[in-house]
Amino acid sequence: MRAASVSDFRELARRRLPKIFFEYIDGGSYAEVTLKRNVEDLEAIALRQRVMKDMTELSMTVETLGQTLAMPVGLAPVGMAGMYGRRGETQAARAAAAAGVPFCLSTVGVCSVEEVARTGTPPWFQLYMLKDRGYMRELLARAHELGSPVLVFTVDLPIPGARYRDVRSGFTGAGKLEAVLNQAWDGITHPAWTWDVFVHGRPHTLGSVAGAVQEGRRVTDFLVWIARNFDRSVTWKDLDWVRENWDRPIVVKGVLDVEDARDAVRAGAQGVVVSNHGGRQLDGVKSSIASLPRIADAVGGELEVFMDGGVRSGLDVLKALALGAKACFVGRPWAYALGAGGEAAIGKMLGLMRSELAVAMILTGCNDVRRAGRELLDI
Amino acid sequence: MRAASVSDFRELARRRLPKIFFEYIDGGSYAEVTLKRNVEDLEAIALRQRVMKDMTELSMTVETLGQTLAMPVGLAPVGMAGMYGRRGETQAARAAAAAGVPFCLSTVGVCSVEEVARTGTPPWFQLYMLKDRGYMRELLARAHELGSPVLVFTVDLPIPGARYRDVRSGFTGAGKLEAVLNQAWDGITHPAWTWDVFVHGRPHTLGSVAGAVQEGRRVTDFLVWIARNFDRSVTWKDLDWVRENWDRPIVVKGVLDVEDARDAVRAGAQGVVVSNHGGRQLDGVKSSIASLPRIADAVGGELEVFMDGGVRSGLDVLKALALGAKACFVGRPWAYALGAGGEAAIGKMLGLMRSELAVAMILTGCNDVRRAGRELLDI
Amino acid sequence: MRAASVSDFRELARRRLPKIFFEYIDGGSYAEVTLKRNVEDLEAIALRQRVMKDMTELSMTVETLGQTLAMPVGLAPVGMAGMYGRRGETQAARAAAAAGVPFCLSTVGVCSVEEVARTGTPPWFQLYMLKDRGYMRELLARAHELGSPVLVFTVDLPIPGARYRDVRSGFTGAGKLEAVLNQAWDGITHPAWTWDVFVHGRPHTLGSVAGAVQEGRRVTDFLVWIARNFDRSVTWKDLDWVRENWDRPIVVKGVLDVEDARDAVRAGAQGVVVSNHGGRQLDGVKSSIASLPRIADAVGGELEVFMDGGVRSGLDVLKALALGAKACFVGRPWAYALGAGGEAAIGKMLGLMRSELAVAMILTGCNDVRRAGRELLDI
Amino acid sequence: MRAASVSDFRELARRRLPKIFFEYIDGGSYAEVTLKRNVEDLEAIALRQRVMKDMTELSMTVETLGQTLAMPVGLAPVGMAGMYGRRGETQAARAAAAAGVPFCLSTVGVCSVEEVARTGTPPWFQLYMLKDRGYMRELLARAHELGSPVLVFTVDLPIPGARYRDVRSGFTGAGKLEAVLNQAWDGITHPAWTWDVFVHGRPHTLGSVAGAVQEGRRVTDFLVWIARNFDRSVTWKDLDWVRENWDRPIVVKGVLDVEDARDAVRAGAQGVVVSNHGGRQLDGVKSSIASLPRIADAVGGELEVFMDGGVRSGLDVLKALALGAKACFVGRPWAYALGAGGEAAIGKMLGLMRSELAVAMILTGCNDVRRAGRELLDI
Ligand SMILES: Cc1cc2nc3c(=O)[nH]c(=O)nc-3n(C[C@H](O)[C@H](O)[C@H](O)COP(=O)(O)O)c2cc1C
Ligand SMILES: Cc1cc2nc3c(=O)[nH]c(=O)nc-3n(C[C@H](O)[C@H](O)[C@H](O)COP(=O)(O)O)c2cc1C
Ligand SMILES: Cc1cc2nc3c(=O)[nH]c(=O)nc-3n(C[C@H](O)[C@H](O)[C@H](O)COP(=O)(O)O)c2cc1C
Ligand SMILES: Cc1cc2nc3c(=O)[nH]c(=O)nc-3n(C[C@H](O)[C@H](O)[C@H](O)COP(=O)(O)O)c2cc1C
Repeated sequence: MRAASVSDFRELARRRLPKIFFEYIDGGSYAEVTLKRNVEDLEAIALRQRVMKDMTELSMTVETLGQTLAMPVGLAPVGMAGMYGRRGETQAARAAAAAGVPFCLSTVGVCSVEEVARTGTPPWFQLYMLKDRGYMRELLARAHELGSPVLVFTVDLPIPGARYRDVRSGFTGAGKLEAVLNQAWDGITHPAWTWDVFVHGRPHTLGSVAGAVQEGRRVTDFLVWIARNFDRSVTWKDLDWVRENWDRPIVVKGVLDVEDARDAVRAGAQGVVVSNHGGRQLDGVKSSIASLPRIADAVGGELEVFMDGGVRSGLDVLKALALGAKACFVGRPWAYALGAGGEAAIGKMLGLMRSELAVAMILTGCNDVRRAGRELLDI
Repeated sequence: MRAASVSDFRELARRRLPKIFFEYIDGGSYAEVTLKRNVEDLEAIALRQRVMKDMTELSMTVETLGQTLAMPVGLAPVGMAGMYGRRGETQAARAAAAAGVPFCLSTVGVCSVEEVARTGTPPWFQLYMLKDRGYMRELLARAHELGSPVLVFTVDLPIPGARYRDVRSGFTGAGKLEAVLNQAWDGITHPAWTWDVFVHGRPHTLGSVAGAVQEGRRVTDFLVWIARNFDRSVTWKDLDWVRENWDRPIVVKGVLDVEDARDAVRAGAQGVVVSNHGGRQLDGVKSSIASLPRIADAVGGELEVFMDGGVRSGLDVLKALALGAKACFVGRPWAYALGAGGEAAIGKMLGLMRSELAVAMILTGCNDVRRAGRELLDI
Repeated sequence: MRAASVSDFRELARRRLPKIFFEYIDGGSYAEVTLKRNVEDLEAIALRQRVMKDMTELSMTVETLGQTLAMPVGLAPVGMAGMYGRRGETQAARAAAAAGVPFCLSTVGVCSVEEVARTGTPPWFQLYMLKDRGYMRELLARAHELGSPVLVFTVDLPIPGARYRDVRSGFTGAGKLEAVLNQAWDGITHPAWTWDVFVHGRPHTLGSVAGAVQEGRRVTDFLVWIARNFDRSVTWKDLDWVRENWDRPIVVKGVLDVEDARDAVRAGAQGVVVSNHGGRQLDGVKSSIASLPRIADAVGGELEVFMDGGVRSGLDVLKALALGAKACFVGRPWAYALGAGGEAAIGKMLGLMRSELAVAMILTGCNDVRRAGRELLDI
Repeated sequence: MRAASVSDFRELARRRLPKIFFEYIDGGSYAEVTLKRNVEDLEAIALRQRVMKDMTELSMTVETLGQTLAMPVGLAPVGMAGMYGRRGETQAARAAAAAGVPFCLSTVGVCSVEEVARTGTPPWFQLYMLKDRGYMRELLARAHELGSPVLVFTVDLPIPGARYRDVRSGFTGAGKLEAVLNQAWDGITHPAWTWDVFVHGRPHTLGSVAGAVQEGRRVTDFLVWIARNFDRSVTWKDLDWVRENWDRPIVVKGVLDVEDARDAVRAGAQGVVVSNHGGRQLDGVKSSIASLPRIADAVGGELEVFMDGGVRSGLDVLKALALGAKACFVGRPWAYALGAGGEAAIGKMLGLMRSELAVAMILTGCNDVRRAGRELLDI
């Protein structure tokens, strides 16, 4: 099967990955209503076809937070990517760098921030607020030292939402990875993955936080660790503390409400990601794209407004831009691609996004993504 | 299969129970439009994600009708539960007591109110208006004597609605239970149930009303008895008669219209359950959740407003609270759990509800269920 | 399988009838959009649940056009019913009489109006405008002579709409019935039907119009005859001609538009049937139930407003009454029942309608169908 | 299988054609949202049933751009039709001429404009703007010389949209047709096609542009040629250049926006086709039928407004006319028919459209398509 779209990479990943990992990537929380809304609400938005404009020049470049992005797309932080492809985070980082877009490393990546930085491009660094502030400070210092240009501070996971699929697949509450694989015959039925990741992709720990995790360092029960170490007492005041330890731009990820966006401005953030964690946290909340316009209207002039959730093509990217986003992040699309074919597949996926964005620009008469506005939509 | 959600308990019950009982629990009346609406309308409501609030303290306790509920959830009256698990009503009563929530015993329970009271916690007692007022008075006296704190007076079953599935499965009009089982090979194909309920769960009579039922005491034809003994001439005036025989709180169950809710206030009820009998009576009426807000607005200040119908997770509970309910009742969720695994499963189900409610509260910034209001919703 | 609902009779008919006849009954024209709308629009209407009303007295009787109907339901004219059950029209007529409701005989019935009248109750008589006015006059005279109390004049078939299923099943353009049966092995695979209808249900001609049909008297190609003999030049003026030949009530069937309904009043009709021929003519028109309220509002005071299309239960009947219909007609429901089990099944179907209507009345607090209005709906 | 509708021709084509060609015809771009909208939005429009009008006279004739059309339907330009049936474009041209409707030849037809003109009726000629203006001028001169009455200038393909199905089927990026057939066993599994098209339907080049295509003249990779030779710098000014080379009517195809339609008027076009290229270009744009009314209102008085996209029956044709179209074009319907059964099938399909249109006119009381307006719709 040749991959023509993100949905094809999804199918390829489904075949190649052990079930627990595929379900973990693919699923959302509870009845997966928000997961569906993210995709369907984007699909429902109508682009406005325009013709006979001179579309020789197309500019996809955006400047944000001191960086130049070759197109308005970035790789969202995705936990445990090293389990979907050998040293997955480094593969993603390289593909992103080649495409000229940012890669954001998750707190709970298999590869540490040091390992990713060694690819040559220090990643944006995503952080959850941990109870152990000493360890957090240490992490911030390490990422800063390595040159990470942006801190992505995720605020929508004060407690993990229940993902029914993970319970059913055996991911939640699973034992050692070895045990899981033996039990499930997953090793035998997914030989490519076994060779690539299980045999050659070690160690299977959470690189950046390995020093802090006590629970036997098994990658599969990191949710237990999150549940114990994540801090639900965090408020906007704590952002001050973060800023004392990080003098570069801070982007608050997981804002879905105008009030919260305004608070982020007040708290001095340089950006927000309008996000519901890809429909993985509070099921039943609105889609990111439905929440975006009001937030962009309210605070777009004061900080950078990004969005993620449900973006599956370059057409979706243009829709988000038209509704006020500076750039989009994609989570599952690159996780699927990584699982399907590693760095090359991620590169291919980014290439598809780019050419789809080009078609969308040309047929809406938009020469420059920086000038994308609601006039591109048929409302 | 490990159960991660109410829908998993449903699946487990489907496998374990004889078809006639599963269909009886699962089905609704006629084309099952209202049954679907109950679930879908709840699903369509959008919670409002809020972040960066200090969510260390979470209070789920509610005071109602002189009782303290550990969370705003109760087990709705479900007929014949003793056929889904051995002495099912007592198992449910114990699970509810352990979770600190009320269990409401149906008029047509397999276990009598006496048997349930022996678990240590006298149940809320649900009553249909019967033609034989003498027997009703006796029943009320028995429940009162045993200490039932609340009378739930069900008003939406003056005549039973037709449930097509029950006719198809052979439940309606079935003969002796033995005959049903032999005929259908249900005994052989459902050995766990046969051992648990059929062999060791006797007697299979309707405990509380056994004295009044004449039709050979077969549990499966109790609908015939209902059809003969239920009284469709009942009006609000008859509530006076009930109150003469019951000096504790009375909750009128089955109110879906504002006018009826106002009448319930006038008639001196202490509470109403906004309900359409789980989509089992007049198919085509609105969902409970769609009817709730107007009723809560109209009479919420004068009596306790509860709701049931379609609640499948703790997220749904918070939605109902936000729209004006003091607490929710769940019917099928506990019947499925009972059929799936008895008391332990009901406890598990209530635990899921509790942790789902916690996630919903934390991610909407609601520290106390008593303060849940429409600001928790994204309308 | 025991039939609990109209949909069960449909399933039974599907099994018992040769495919060409089942598809002919079941299908609609073109993409079957209107067919679906008829059912779905009724389903979408919400009844308003009311409780604690004294529902001891229930009156379902309606007076219309000089007749008393035991309930506000009638059997719509359905062509070729004698092919779905042995002398099908007489079976239907008897079942209707037993239930106290009118049976309307189609112009293209297998049984002639004389044969049906011999059951003891002369049917309402449905007529298409034919090019051969002499033959029409003769038909009218025959029906009048036999005592048919009402003439139903169908106006929505000036040309037959294309029914794709009939072309696919081989019904349209089929040859002799014998040939069809041999070819299709339909005789062997549907032995009950073969014995009942093919062997013992002869003759297979269109009873009332047999004298006028020249095309070899094959029942299956009567559509050809319709196409040749139906008259698309008919206007309201022609109704005068009809009235000269019929001094009893005339009901115009197939009105979907307010303007046409007003014209029917002007033309002196005693009633209209709001109908789109069961979604069998112009696909894409509105459902009958969606068209009903405006028509009832406009002309309900001046003539009897009936409706048909999509009525599948007594609940639907009450919805139609609430929106202004005096009574409903059902087409497929009785054709399915006839195909499923003859007269007894039609009686059973009417019994279901009746008890469903009773439940709907009791739970909406409606004691008398004659007082059903929009207050029964939750709009 | 006898074909009763366009959907039947689709099914027949699916069986007869090699997968790559069927998928190419059937598919749309990206997630195929617009493709679905084209059909569903037409389906959702309600015709207004009228009765008792004298419908003896029916006129379907329209005059447009100096021609008389026997009905308001034309065959839209479809690329590579010679691969779906032997010398497919000539078959279509003959069927169209027989039915008295225009056939529009695609720039990328297998048959050259000369070959088609030899059928006796010079086709309307569709042109894309090519980078090589010299070759374009030559093409225009050839078509003009042969007597093509109308130039259809397609403007919604400045860049080809991605069609995922073509990548998956192997069409995009496929090698020699021989290779494709061998590889896929398509020759063996589709013998009728192989005999008709592969063996006897040669040469398999793009007739009109064969002189300009350099890439080895393989029909299957013409998309590559389009991508290289199509010109995305074209603006309305370039229409002047076209007009200098074409003094007969010019119809701009691919206008979906009122602003663009106004520009087309200013640029001196004689007509526009409201079109999104059958959902094959910018996925996510509105359906043609949804875009039509505003455009017809804005410019209908100044040039001819046609539409295409999703028209699947004569009922759809009347809907489009009622919303302001002078005539409709159909793309897939004739491509399916060609693949299903060649010229005869296209004739059959046009016959179906005609009789369906007649039914729609008769039952909406419309005697003349030229007077079709919004009063035919139930809005
Ligand atoms: C498998 C997976 C793991 C994720 N892990 C993290 C994470 O560790 N930190 C974080 O902030 N977001 C995480 N997210 C959320 C993504 O950053 C992003 O918000 C989401 O995936 C966007 O939706 P999309 O998948 O529809 O593009 C994760 C998402 C997925 C699918
Ligand atoms: C199997 C079953 C039996 C029921 N029996 C009774 C009953 O005896 N008395 C009563 O008041 N309600 C009865 N109900 C209705 C429930 O109390 C409750 O209103 C309904 O189940 C709520 O909807 P849910 O199942 O979607 O939670 C029954 C419901 C079910 C599913
Ligand atoms: C198989 C069949 C045959 C019909 N034949 C006639 C007929 O001969 N004359 C007529 O006026 N209506 C005829 N109708 C239309 C019915 O009278 C009625 O309008 C329609 O069936 C109502 O819709 P329903 O089937 O959803 O109840 C026919 C309907 C069906 C299903
Ligand atoms: C297989 C196929 C090939 C097409 N090729 C062309 C083409 O070469 N030039 C063009 O202007 N339009 C082309 N079109 C678009 C059609 O002219 C027309 O706009 C579209 O098919 C209308 O939608 P419909 O298929 O739903 O009727 C093509 C469409 C199809 C389906």
